[in-house]
Amino acid sequence: MQKIFFTPGPAHLYPTVGNHLKQALDLQLFSLSHRSKRYEAIHQKAVDGVRALMAIPQDFHIFFHSSATEIWERLIQNAVMEKSFHFVNGSFSSRYYEIACELQVDARKEEAAWGKAFDLSQVNIPSDTELINFTHNETSTGVMLDLGEIYALKKKHANALLTLDLVSSAPYGQPDWTQTDAAYFSVQKCFGLPAGLGVLILSPTMLAKAAQKTAAGHSTGSYHSFASQLSKAQKSQTPETPNVPNIYLLGQVCEDMLRKGIETIRRETEQKAALLYDFFDQYPVYQNFVREKAYRSQTVIVADIPSGSGPLIKRLVEQGMVLGDGYGAMKGKQIRVANFPAVSVADVEALISKLADG
Amino acid sequence: MQKIFFTPGPAHLYPTVGNHLKQALDLQLFSLSHRSKRYEAIHQKAVDGVRALMAIPQDFHIFFHSSATEIWERLIQNAVMEKSFHFVNGSFSSRYYEIACELQVDARKEEAAWGKAFDLSQVNIPSDTELINFTHNETSTGVMLDLGEIYALKKKHANALLTLDLVSSAPYGQPDWTQTDAAYFSVQKCFGLPAGLGVLILSPTMLAKAAQKTAAGHSTGSYHSFASQLSKAQKSQTPETPNVPNIYLLGQVCEDMLRKGIETIRRETEQKAALLYDFFDQYPVYQNFVREKAYRSQTVIVADIPSGSGPLIKRLVEQGMVLGDGYGAMKGKQIRVANFPAVSVADVEALISKLADG
Repeated sequence: MQKIFFTPGPAHLYPTVGNHLKQALDLQLFSLSHRSKRYEAIHQKAVDGVRALMAIPQDFHIFFHSSATEIWERLIQNAVMEKSFHFVNGSFSSRYYEIACELQVDARKEEAAWGKAFDLSQVNIPSDTELINFTHNETSTGVMLDLGEIYALKKKHANALLTLDLVSSAPYGQPDWTQTDAAYFSVQKCFGLPAGLGVLILSPTMLAKAAQKTAAGHSTGSYHSFASQLSKAQKSQTPETPNVPNIYLLGQVCEDMLRKGIETIRRETEQKAALLYDFFDQYPVYQNFVREKAYRSQTVIVADIPSGSGPLIKRLVEQGMVLGDGYGAMKGKQIRVANFPAVSVADVEALISKLADG
Repeated sequence: MQKIFFTPGPAHLYPTVGNHLKQALDLQLFSLSHRSKRYEAIHQKAVDGVRALMAIPQDFHIFFHSSATEIWERLIQNAVMEKSFHFVNGSFSSRYYEIACELQVDARKEEAAWGKAFDLSQVNIPSDTELINFTHNETSTGVMLDLGEIYALKKKHANALLTLDLVSSAPYGQPDWTQTDAAYFSVQKCFGLPAGLGVLILSPTMLAKAAQKTAAGHSTGSYHSFASQLSKAQKSQTPETPNVPNIYLLGQVCEDMLRKGIETIRRETEQKAALLYDFFDQYPVYQNFVREKAYRSQTVIVADIPSGSGPLIKRLVEQGMVLGDGYGAMKGKQIRVANFPAVSVADVEALISKLADG
């Protein structure tokens, strides 16, 4: 039985992925040299696809990493000499903060309870902070922050670089690139690809900051320093031998998504999210975990099940639908439903009908 | 027309890879959570397969990275506080040395000309050197060092950790694990997989050194510090969401190779290499680049073509056979022939018959 994966990453594959992979095998693309013209065309197609889908300015750089976890490390390594600041409201925003600490940066944080957003009027950010991170969509809690509020805060800290974690919101989330210095995502979430690739989008300011750090005598790492990546990206290559299958699939799926239209994808995402939130609001077994409607994620919907989520998750797997469990301390008490483009309105309706039995 | 890739990485896919990939799609393995029991079984199978194939002791650790390039960085980051020493006789051994410099280690090197091995009786290694690296098989030049000579040198520097680059020789190359602190390879070479995965094998001593570096107050990185990797590897997981397709394929292909038998693979490798070296020795258009027979690689065979290699490479592509060009300064003057397990004796014979026309 083919299952539908509503798990928030690795997630259900985008419907075209299987055929793209089989075609790539037929074309023997995975034996191509990563220094060949044909590889460069594959690389460029993926970069162009991401740029078109998310309306990224031509002077922003798009670099490939192996995971968003790697990207956290590279951002700190390249763009912070002393101080970073992290808005932490779940496991993944917390992990970025921890990585900054492990890299021996003076990392500060502002915390919000799981399921909540931040009161940005109350935050005290040191004036010499070099980088501020917000996690647009906390995959662990289903909180989606308001980009307008984030940009209002950023204006008060003009000297700090703003990094936006779009791991589980891109390409639904659309940054204002005039206000954003870096944004990044993983392909195994909304793009519906196998795991193993993280995409980092950088402003020219971000590269200038890395150059400044190098000039001051600090290491910015080695093969994945921004300078090293830039020198290869200018030829549509990577410093290392890259994950060619995923870069190929990313280009193909971006093309598919552009054909469908990003506005259609966003509208369907909101439509499916509304179906789920309305159902959880109305049906007594469930309770939407994020109480404030303005901060309810459109891509990861989390519901409390006070009686325990284990039996429901087990029953639905047997019926061919895989849900995410609550994350961390919420394991066994919640379900997390990934509402990514790979699942259709009909899939969500079918899920709701099964949830209504439970 | 399906081509045969004799390129030294990305290379010809191992013959079973296409079917394994299609089966993984049918089984929806790429949507599995990387924290699930089923993922753990996939991970464990790959680790067990590598361990069995290369006779790795149970107390050695096997960690997954995104490339051998990443592994160079992680080895320096985790195991060197001040001084490393690098035997450099080609582009890849040189790149590891450069990465150590970029990470601000006091890196020293001993160089040999391209196509040559080292006179190890003449080398001056500082007594406080923490790590010594040898590139067992230089993919850029086709020189394969003698492991016995390497271990004899290692015995004179008992306090230094020995790291062995097996990028394009594993699993043909069989380290003596009692003398080796780390060895690593990329899956797109002899294992015949798509690129995007590097495998690092570490002795317990290596992990102790990383712990010592941490205890001394130095950073060993973040998610890919050896300590972080160990904590997840003990559960057959990775700190980040990993490249699941490649980890799956590695486990499957190791199983296929074990079924065939590592001794058979090694014997066939030597048989195919002998065919190529004999041909290049006898046929006047070609000249084996590595003059000393003892250091001729069994897995990457390099021949000079004084009249230029471009036309030959072009003609053979049209006939369905893809050769590697010379590397770096040797581009256009050499061919490099990957003699990996994915190409059969018959494939090599067919290649030789075409080379004889040229």
